[in-house]
Amino acid sequence: MSALKNDCLLKSLLKEPTSRTPVWMMRQAGRHLPEYRKLRRQAGDFMSLCRDPELACEIAMQPLLRYKLDGAILFSDILTVPDAMGLGLYFVEGEGPKFRKPLRTERDVESLSVINSKVDLTYVLEAVSLTRKELDGSVPLIGFAGSPWTLAAYMIEGKSSRDFARTKTWLYQHPEILHQLLQKLTLSVVDYLNAQICSGAQVIQIFDTWGGILSDFAYEEFSLAYTREIITNLISRHNDREVPIVLFTKSGGNWLEKIASSGCNAIGLDWTVSLREARRRVGAAVALQGNMDPAVLRSNPESIELEVQRILHSYGSGSGHVFNLGHGITPDIDPRNVAVFVEAVHRYSRD
Amino acid sequence: MSALKNDCLLKSLLKEPTSRTPVWMMRQAGRHLPEYRKLRRQAGDFMSLCRDPELACEIAMQPLLRYKLDGAILFSDILTVPDAMGLGLYFVEGEGPKFRKPLRTERDVESLSVINSKVDLTYVLEAVSLTRKELDGSVPLIGFAGSPWTLAAYMIEGKSSRDFARTKTWLYQHPEILHQLLQKLTLSVVDYLNAQICSGAQVIQIFDTWGGILSDFAYEEFSLAYTREIITNLISRHNDREVPIVLFTKSGGNWLEKIASSGCNAIGLDWTVSLREARRRVGAAVALQGNMDPAVLRSNPESIELEVQRILHSYGSGSGHVFNLGHGITPDIDPRNVAVFVEAVHRYSRD
Repeated sequence: MSALKNDCLLKSLLKEPTSRTPVWMMRQAGRHLPEYRKLRRQAGDFMSLCRDPELACEIAMQPLLRYKLDGAILFSDILTVPDAMGLGLYFVEGEGPKFRKPLRTERDVESLSVINSKVDLTYVLEAVSLTRKELDGSVPLIGFAGSPWTLAAYMIEGKSSRDFARTKTWLYQHPEILHQLLQKLTLSVVDYLNAQICSGAQVIQIFDTWGGILSDFAYEEFSLAYTREIITNLISRHNDREVPIVLFTKSGGNWLEKIASSGCNAIGLDWTVSLREARRRVGAAVALQGNMDPAVLRSNPESIELEVQRILHSYGSGSGHVFNLGHGITPDIDPRNVAVFVEAVHRYSRD
Repeated sequence: MSALKNDCLLKSLLKEPTSRTPVWMMRQAGRHLPEYRKLRRQAGDFMSLCRDPELACEIAMQPLLRYKLDGAILFSDILTVPDAMGLGLYFVEGEGPKFRKPLRTERDVESLSVINSKVDLTYVLEAVSLTRKELDGSVPLIGFAGSPWTLAAYMIEGKSSRDFARTKTWLYQHPEILHQLLQKLTLSVVDYLNAQICSGAQVIQIFDTWGGILSDFAYEEFSLAYTREIITNLISRHNDREVPIVLFTKSGGNWLEKIASSGCNAIGLDWTVSLREARRRVGAAVALQGNMDPAVLRSNPESIELEVQRILHSYGSGSGHVFNLGHGITPDIDPRNVAVFVEAVHRYSRD
């Protein structure tokens, strides 16, 4: 493996000093890029892209050719894990992910097996190795997985949902079945993330996309307990380098202290949180990643630059900030605005 | 007007001691009740119910006949204000509210007039008077309105939305037009709420349903600034009694200190917030209302009682807590479970 030329992202996630604030974007490789849309049209569907390691690698590299990003992220989907468990993932244009066999009964949960990633998700691990090789040490590669709670919610609903009524009914009516499912997912995610690290992932991000729909009590019992177990069981060093872990919980601003106690190195923040306030609350323990509203990218260069400066100012000086959006970039964004954004983070954080 | 027999809700909102924790539910009058669904079928559509003061009064009373609630709430909708401004509100079964003439241009905003509630929303004020009379002093009547930001978001999108992309584009591209709209809505809501108070509303709740989609910066500028202006301009005493104001901001847990600074008497909390933590942060300044996840009502009496006890315990002893759900009750809830819930709040808070 080539030596890492730009280790700004790794350093910031470990709260070590850097010459400027590193930046990457959730969903940076994807639909906002015309070159991605072209590949997607040729491939037919989203999963065909994920399942082809060479295409996945090409897509992960695309945003790096356009923007001076400080990290690359594996091109894949959090739902590959339930897919490998037999739920039959598929995508319907404009409707998001769906499962052919969502979980309906206790028996459905009992019959699930913990995955063996080297066998069941070979295509992802090959995409990781290939992307790492292709990066050639330019920037670090971020691997990722969904949190057990977030995966469970999709598996029970069979698709995304506005209020996750079915999942919450399990939670309050049959918590023991839900716990059984979460335990199997936890073991699967540990296996999956450790396999990604061994294949070349240098940073790990756990997406707890639906943690924020839980009550304060339920969040601890059904989400945080399992992400903590995952973090405890991850390989913390690989090839003599620490592997930082980012825990991103959409709408998790109320729980920063709890999230910081999970053992993660950095907390991913959505845009509702004040970075200054978050730093005051947990900045001694963890780095912070975020948190511009992706909607800002729909405006104009002046507004984008203003918002970047506001966010940098809100965090203040010193190490421990990775710039990112508060959620994934949306497909309607003009790449020229993204270039302005990335440039602005680098320019204004250097001052 | 009859003297108020149960002033437990008013007292708690003003942080005065009570013998037990008062309870009411957002959307307590509505689709979870078979007697409501029957009236609705007869009337044809939702707005016909709102526009008929006698029917609106009957519906507001329905939950009080079933449950020992400590407050009644006006039966109406937050979107009556934009409707009165000429946007043409209508409801499609299963799709929620829509506007025939959503705002599309600066000109659309310029041509809007501030409402005169006595003329433009007579039917609501008549529903307030009639419901207050029908209550006959049993419990206080809660009036309400949407926050300017929340109303503006619906007016610009023309309906509910997942990410309010159009509204956020205005916010970051044309903030001055959005401010013009918010100012007109603020004047309209002040007029509307003061008219409700003069017609008999004894508590006011402002619903900032979509405040929580804003960034930390934008929340202050586009939502809080206007709710603060409203609160400053509301009649604070009527018929020798203080009129408490509740500000409910869905997903506003990050901003409790700011919300408390608005001048409201109580903050409405969704279920993601720890009551204990919220009380520690702002309990000296305001009362707290909330915050059970309505999904708990879908479970069973044991789980409901457990959750009620947890929430009461989280707030702790002393005055200043009004029990409520963290959002509106959903149509699929069995009224028997609601009875268990209300009973449990009264029983366990008396201990």
